[in-house]
Amino acid sequence: MQQVDVAIIGCGPAGLSAAINVKAQNRTVLLVGPKICSLSLHKAHQINNYLGFYGVSGEELRQYFLKHAEAAGIEITRVTVSAIYPMGKVFQLQVRDKFVEAKAVILTTGVTAGKVLPGEDSFLGKGVSYCATCDGMFYRDKTIAVSSDAVEHEDEVRLLAEIAAKVYYLPQYEVKMDLPNNVELLDTKIKKLKGSDRLEVVELENGQELTVEGVFLLKEQLAPTQIIPGLEFVDRHIKVDEKMATNIPGVFAAGDVTGRPYQIAKAVGQGQIAAFSAVAWCQE
Amino acid sequence: MQQVDVAIIGCGPAGLSAAINVKAQNRTVLLVGPKICSLSLHKAHQINNYLGFYGVSGEELRQYFLKHAEAAGIEITRVTVSAIYPMGKVFQLQVRDKFVEAKAVILTTGVTAGKVLPGEDSFLGKGVSYCATCDGMFYRDKTIAVSSDAVEHEDEVRLLAEIAAKVYYLPQYEVKMDLPNNVELLDTKIKKLKGSDRLEVVELENGQELTVEGVFLLKEQLAPTQIIPGLEFVDRHIKVDEKMATNIPGVFAAGDVTGRPYQIAKAVGQGQIAAFSAVAWCQE
Repeated sequence: MQQVDVAIIGCGPAGLSAAINVKAQNRTVLLVGPKICSLSLHKAHQINNYLGFYGVSGEELRQYFLKHAEAAGIEITRVTVSAIYPMGKVFQLQVRDKFVEAKAVILTTGVTAGKVLPGEDSFLGKGVSYCATCDGMFYRDKTIAVSSDAVEHEDEVRLLAEIAAKVYYLPQYEVKMDLPNNVELLDTKIKKLKGSDRLEVVELENGQELTVEGVFLLKEQLAPTQIIPGLEFVDRHIKVDEKMATNIPGVFAAGDVTGRPYQIAKAVGQGQIAAFSAVAWCQE
Repeated sequence: MQQVDVAIIGCGPAGLSAAINVKAQNRTVLLVGPKICSLSLHKAHQINNYLGFYGVSGEELRQYFLKHAEAAGIEITRVTVSAIYPMGKVFQLQVRDKFVEAKAVILTTGVTAGKVLPGEDSFLGKGVSYCATCDGMFYRDKTIAVSSDAVEHEDEVRLLAEIAAKVYYLPQYEVKMDLPNNVELLDTKIKKLKGSDRLEVVELENGQELTVEGVFLLKEQLAPTQIIPGLEFVDRHIKVDEKMATNIPGVFAAGDVTGRPYQIAKAVGQGQIAAFSAVAWCQE
């Protein structure tokens, strides 16, 4: 099993800052993020209030940030972490069908990650899955629905089509793959998940209802609540103290996910504090 | 009287970040600092952990910061603020013999500002002064001692020499001025201030004792305790909440003065948060 000192979930300004600061203290780091690190920075027209850069576009600043991380020897791993399990003194991160062990975790997933569907939390493990390679085999010869927000998940969709009898596919991006014969493309979104003990019906925004035994929600980034149960929140933001520690020992958070203002300098500063705290935690 | 929305004391990374963020929100700002903004950054060999800049020297980064502030239209006023008085809904800042009114104050004075001498606090206003133009006239034809840490104070030394009968001068820098006849240069430091009701004796590190009626401690930057009485501290750092608010309403703090880690990204991030909080405070 891959072992690292600090795992960082999210590669926006807070995550990148945390990563360079962990690395600067000679600790190993796993930095996990979606295809585009900080979509909101990518879209920002102009940034004037991150000290040191004046009059840059969001994309320019994003490139400076990514170049810094690269120069510092940091790789960004483009996978979805589907769960983090506390195992005594370490954490096990589920990354597809593998596990990575980390002594400390820093959550920097921003505010946009993981809108949760009605029914999603209650049917988790009872028909709802976030990871095809982890749970696909439970659905051999069954009917499932798959929602996906990025082209990177097409391998998983292909795998699910091989296993399942029938796949309703709801891509939220422009599809690149050739669809297998048992895949039915639907140009809408999931509205609601319904059932009794287990998931039974996926209700769509166009009013259609799909009778299925499982649904795979393939997201680039899950909400923190979906990754680690038991995290304490205040007004929909992760509760942290002045050291960026959450209520779960060894788990830290930084950036927009911890609250307003949603600003770069704040995120970068908190990422640094979280890195110092996580490194100190590893040494204990 | 000059009126501003936010007065910022200190022009290191936290102070500069606070200033550009106040200005970005269309509020007026007074940024006060010593001759060199962030002496510790100026001296730093290499900085690798402020996101966006990799492998820069401290001085290079400092220049980027100062250029940003300049581009944003921020002037740094090189004076010593000797006191801040809460006056109902505003603060009055004593800047030499003038006052400036501010709706909110952000303290970013760092950790090195203002080592306090034994006796300094107890004789404040009873023989101890920080401002020649404010208090000089009380010492007409008297004997005083003057300590100074920067060439910028030489005007004040000249003024004091005109007023007082005799001046013992203890410069902590390389003197540029021609010394008036009644000024005696002493190449040592003040160790202790002694007296009963008022200051009577200045004890020097070389063992010499000077009998004086007053001492002027001309410092580029005073300690926060000396500027605002009643500030709450934790372990010699100003106590702040997550919005960078101190225990005094309308007074915020950011950077090293609020505690460890003593790091640039943290200071810049906190400066931004303090700016947002101060601007919100002005709007209330």
